[in-house]
Amino acid sequence: MDFSSFMTSLGTSFLIFVVLMLIFTWLSRKPANDVVYSPNLIVKGLYSSSRTRNPTSWIKEAISSSEDDIISISGVDTAVYFVFLATALAMLFLAGIVLLPSLLPVSITDHSVRLNSTTSNGTFNELDKFSMGHIGQKSDRLWAYLIAVYWVSLVTYFLLWKAYKHVSEIRAASLMSSEVRAEQFAVLVRDIPPPHEGETRKEQVDSYFNAVYPDTFYRSMVVTNNKEVNKIWEELEAYKKNLVIAETVYAQSKTIVSPEGTRPMNRLGLLGLCGKKVDTIDYCNEKISELIPKLEAEQKKTIRDRQVSSALIFFSSRVAAASAAQSLHARMVDHWTVMDAPEPRQIIWDNLSLNYYAREVRKYIVYIIVALAVLFFMLPISVISAFTTLENLAKLLPFIKPVLAIVSIRTVLGAYLPQLTLIIFLAMLPTLVMFLSKLEGIPSESHAVRSASGKYFYFIVFNAFIGVTLGGTLFGNLKDMEEHPNEIAELLGKGLPDNATFFLTFVALRCFVGYGLELSRLVPLIMFYLKKKYLCKTEAEVKEAWAPGDFRYATRIPADLLILTITLCYSVIAPLILPFGIIYFGLGWLVMRNQALKVYVPSFESYGRMWPHLHTRFLAALVLYQVTMLGYFGVKEFIYTVTLIPLPIISLIFAWVCNKKFYRFFQHPALEVACQELKETPNLKCVYMSFLPPSLSYEMLDVDQCEDV
Amino acid sequence: MDFSSFMTSLGTSFLIFVVLMLIFTWLSRKPANDVVYSPNLIVKGLYSSSRTRNPTSWIKEAISSSEDDIISISGVDTAVYFVFLATALAMLFLAGIVLLPSLLPVSITDHSVRLNSTTSNGTFNELDKFSMGHIGQKSDRLWAYLIAVYWVSLVTYFLLWKAYKHVSEIRAASLMSSEVRAEQFAVLVRDIPPPHEGETRKEQVDSYFNAVYPDTFYRSMVVTNNKEVNKIWEELEAYKKNLVIAETVYAQSKTIVSPEGTRPMNRLGLLGLCGKKVDTIDYCNEKISELIPKLEAEQKKTIRDRQVSSALIFFSSRVAAASAAQSLHARMVDHWTVMDAPEPRQIIWDNLSLNYYAREVRKYIVYIIVALAVLFFMLPISVISAFTTLENLAKLLPFIKPVLAIVSIRTVLGAYLPQLTLIIFLAMLPTLVMFLSKLEGIPSESHAVRSASGKYFYFIVFNAFIGVTLGGTLFGNLKDMEEHPNEIAELLGKGLPDNATFFLTFVALRCFVGYGLELSRLVPLIMFYLKKKYLCKTEAEVKEAWAPGDFRYATRIPADLLILTITLCYSVIAPLILPFGIIYFGLGWLVMRNQALKVYVPSFESYGRMWPHLHTRFLAALVLYQVTMLGYFGVKEFIYTVTLIPLPIISLIFAWVCNKKFYRFFQHPALEVACQELKETPNLKCVYMSFLPPSLSYEMLDVDQCEDV
Repeated sequence: MDFSSFMTSLGTSFLIFVVLMLIFTWLSRKPANDVVYSPNLIVKGLYSSSRTRNPTSWIKEAISSSEDDIISISGVDTAVYFVFLATALAMLFLAGIVLLPSLLPVSITDHSVRLNSTTSNGTFNELDKFSMGHIGQKSDRLWAYLIAVYWVSLVTYFLLWKAYKHVSEIRAASLMSSEVRAEQFAVLVRDIPPPHEGETRKEQVDSYFNAVYPDTFYRSMVVTNNKEVNKIWEELEAYKKNLVIAETVYAQSKTIVSPEGTRPMNRLGLLGLCGKKVDTIDYCNEKISELIPKLEAEQKKTIRDRQVSSALIFFSSRVAAASAAQSLHARMVDHWTVMDAPEPRQIIWDNLSLNYYAREVRKYIVYIIVALAVLFFMLPISVISAFTTLENLAKLLPFIKPVLAIVSIRTVLGAYLPQLTLIIFLAMLPTLVMFLSKLEGIPSESHAVRSASGKYFYFIVFNAFIGVTLGGTLFGNLKDMEEHPNEIAELLGKGLPDNATFFLTFVALRCFVGYGLELSRLVPLIMFYLKKKYLCKTEAEVKEAWAPGDFRYATRIPADLLILTITLCYSVIAPLILPFGIIYFGLGWLVMRNQALKVYVPSFESYGRMWPHLHTRFLAALVLYQVTMLGYFGVKEFIYTVTLIPLPIISLIFAWVCNKKFYRFFQHPALEVACQELKETPNLKCVYMSFLPPSLSYEMLDVDQCEDV
Repeated sequence: MDFSSFMTSLGTSFLIFVVLMLIFTWLSRKPANDVVYSPNLIVKGLYSSSRTRNPTSWIKEAISSSEDDIISISGVDTAVYFVFLATALAMLFLAGIVLLPSLLPVSITDHSVRLNSTTSNGTFNELDKFSMGHIGQKSDRLWAYLIAVYWVSLVTYFLLWKAYKHVSEIRAASLMSSEVRAEQFAVLVRDIPPPHEGETRKEQVDSYFNAVYPDTFYRSMVVTNNKEVNKIWEELEAYKKNLVIAETVYAQSKTIVSPEGTRPMNRLGLLGLCGKKVDTIDYCNEKISELIPKLEAEQKKTIRDRQVSSALIFFSSRVAAASAAQSLHARMVDHWTVMDAPEPRQIIWDNLSLNYYAREVRKYIVYIIVALAVLFFMLPISVISAFTTLENLAKLLPFIKPVLAIVSIRTVLGAYLPQLTLIIFLAMLPTLVMFLSKLEGIPSESHAVRSASGKYFYFIVFNAFIGVTLGGTLFGNLKDMEEHPNEIAELLGKGLPDNATFFLTFVALRCFVGYGLELSRLVPLIMFYLKKKYLCKTEAEVKEAWAPGDFRYATRIPADLLILTITLCYSVIAPLILPFGIIYFGLGWLVMRNQALKVYVPSFESYGRMWPHLHTRFLAALVLYQVTMLGYFGVKEFIYTVTLIPLPIISLIFAWVCNKKFYRFFQHPALEVACQELKETPNLKCVYMSFLPPSLSYEMLDVDQCEDV
């Protein structure tokens, strides 16, 4: 990539950013768009339509918001995400203020390579002057770079240690809160052995926990297989929704068409297109009154007969629940496995029926699948590409033959079909990874998100980063190497800074276009207006159309980590990447602060359990960087490279120490935290009820009834 | 080793065994020797002098004793040791009854090697006929050996699984016992942070645990540095002992010398040889009345000022203590570390003052020292040998010069000095290993024993087994190999069975001489009579002289495991080793059963925590065997060797599954076990008192006083 195309790429990215910002400024001033630009405020009931609509006010609000604001509006997980962004920003900033003024002069004033390279056919452009590739072999100037590697590493250790400590405090403060939170009073028990003859599962569970916790055991809820009852409940809900729509339509028709109005009708057949025509309101009412007794019968049957080997146990104190979740209950680990209960809203009920061995086996199978997918990612795509040639397509779908006859379309399709396959596959990847994580038998949504995020991280770091680096370096120069095999080391040394330019534009693109789109919310805005215009008939449906969703950490965090890994790895080789990294995380912090305060509604709260995951991957990026530098200094034939060898070892020791010191508190709440006094005596019945799945708690069937069954 | 010398060696071992058995039969019939041959019965108060003294009655008693007898007389740890012996015996027996009748005929009837080896200078003796070395390369007969490898492995998995389950049950039954055991009501807390200003450590600990366990917390005992108080206490005890001796001597002198007797006198100077002469009884009385107030003052001072960062916490129920020991209390793992309390008698008080980081650092330093010692064991010995030549000795100790002038002594010393160094070093090894284990900061004796046993195991397996095998094979034939480097594989194939003969005699020696000495207790017997005659003056001293000690698992278990490893590794190569292995573990079971019932008094009870340790090392031996076989079949150029590759993998999976399923219960008592009802309400004051170190609980200073300080 030469200098002009680099500048073009940067300019384009920045231009798109400016345009998106203008769109945002313009659109966000209209009160009608507030459902798109500040849905979280509306959901939380903090919305006031009279607030200032100054174009820069969002920046002021974002900067002035404190961590406590974030925790109270968006939860601990969001606050932890900002700790991560701030740590990455601080690290790159501290690296930048030292590396940029010290390393750039060192490389610009070195002319040794230019002199040596007169024999080679490479042309050094303006950008390469700023990189380490411009330093000659064995040059004493490399000392500056070597010290820089140490500086970046030490800064990272310091900041990560501080951050882990800080997150630990946030987590503790939040767990100590005097609010009653249902999940703090419950534990989840899995792998309950089959009950004895003549004993129900509920009796078995109650007698077991009564014996161990005579004073603090409150009651139990045996988990059931709710597939059947959910089906009926969903059907019932659908009819209720249709009824509301039909009544709205009927009411509107009274004002528009005629005073009596027209009663809405629909057909019963496929997609409402054929079959008998019926009055919708009557039909729905009839169906609803038919389904309610059916649901009740099914609920009773479910609670009686469809019990699985899991249960939720409720305690009368937080400390009892916290202690129970950490203790071994049965002699065999594969019986009575006790763990912290997830929040009711994030329990993955379907996974609770899996037993210990099923979970373990699934876990390892998923790990193997992911490892194979990471390593041989390109393989299935090549296979699919081979099959989706135009000839094959024409055979499979004869009706597109005439289209393919047009030469121009044929050319374009032929050129883009392989890329299209890749894009589709990449777009499916997050879904696939999430599906695999849930397949492991994980009981909570937040854990599944963490697991998916980890898988996705390995995937993109391996394929996007290492793949491109090695590919660009080795495969890109494969022909040269065949001719001059001795030049491999030289090519590698030249190749790494070359890729730096590519990654520089990549970071800029992700930064400007990514955060521009994030802030302007163009896609959700368009989707919302389309849905509102053509699909929504009731208030509830409109609300559903602007529902902002959560942060989607499963893809957001790996994407951030990829940028971090790239910036870190090239920080010393090409320090010019640092300003872009700083802009990425600075802008990211600002934009996401706005989104956290006004847009996204978190769908779960894991009290910062994401942090150890972030910490480990941050450190993994650091180790990758240190190893890369070790290799690169080796290419430069710099004999003092050996002084870098302790760095990866120090990183591993640092990781081990952090893990030892902090990690256990992120697995389980510490008892000194759980034993804090509560504001009020908890209403245990409410705690219990909050865990009842909606299909079982529906309308009737109060708690005493559950008890009797 | 040729056939005749092999038979000589076996015969000698067996002869020694017969002689020792005769000595045992003769000596054990004399009631005067009962303190040597059944001290445990005397200690436990089960001794009756009128029991049958039939020479074979001990065998009958050993065989007829049940596991419950062993548990009630000698504890769970002893029972677990017998499970290990029985498992090893059963494994070797099941291997023997299949391998001996099937493999021996296969190797005897094969003549291919004899025909091939006419060119080599090796002479096959009678013994080699029975081994796998007698089978030709690529012979189809190797199939039989391959199946045998599978048979031995499968039998081992089956027996180990059964044994782990059984031990788990014994442990549970014992922990569930309705007896009150002090350590089940307590936990040990380490790494207590410094108390706040104006707060004593006791207040700090009490308020912390009162907050977390308002209902079940009973009281706390802050651990103190008892060095000073122990010194005074030991001095006091010594004077008391001397007083008793002096009074006994005075009483005896009344009957022997004259009616008034002679009051014993002693000198105050060095070793009682010089200085002022005083009346011993008066002097001791005076000293005692002087020391008692000093001790009291020191006790108060210790409790007030010498508190370390550890404490024992007492709970009013077993389940509360069991649950507390498993839970994370503080947010940072390096504060308020809680663990199960060891029995009072096995607490290593000095280690309780070490903090978290000191323990971790010490642990890794010890690991590194042990790893280096295992790998470079021979190095220091060579160095020491080099320095302890006769010339150097003569320089250092000039007075032995005349002795060295005598030629015969010089020759003998010159020949044996290196071996002597080795023997002294080996004899010091168990002490060294125990010292290193205690240096790690382990809080209990039983844990230190397990840790020392592990270190010793690696040491002897690496040096005695692998060293001898590789040495015998490779280094022994080094010269041949230099001449014909292609014959390396052939030599290895021949070398392994050669070593089999060596190890066969080794197992026989350990078995016959070792257990002969164990049963006849010749050394303790002689020591006892010598002490009684020349040293003991009071009843208490005589009792001390025959005190039998405990099992010394730290060296006994590695020694057994070494025999197991050897027998297992050669089971298929030279099945003739199996009968000796069976005799070793069979005879061992019988002799040790007798020793457990009548001789040894266990010094601690860890409720079978030794088992996971035994299990892992048993499996390590199995993996070593499987890998050895893989290599050996490779030497035989048998292409179906690949079918053995799954075996080590299966072993690792088996180890992992066992670890997952059973291990956690051996780390902590399961709550369902701890929640069993007790026979009587525990006297918590007694529980508390039992943990007071003797120097602090001495005579006065009752519990309420401790409280006030």
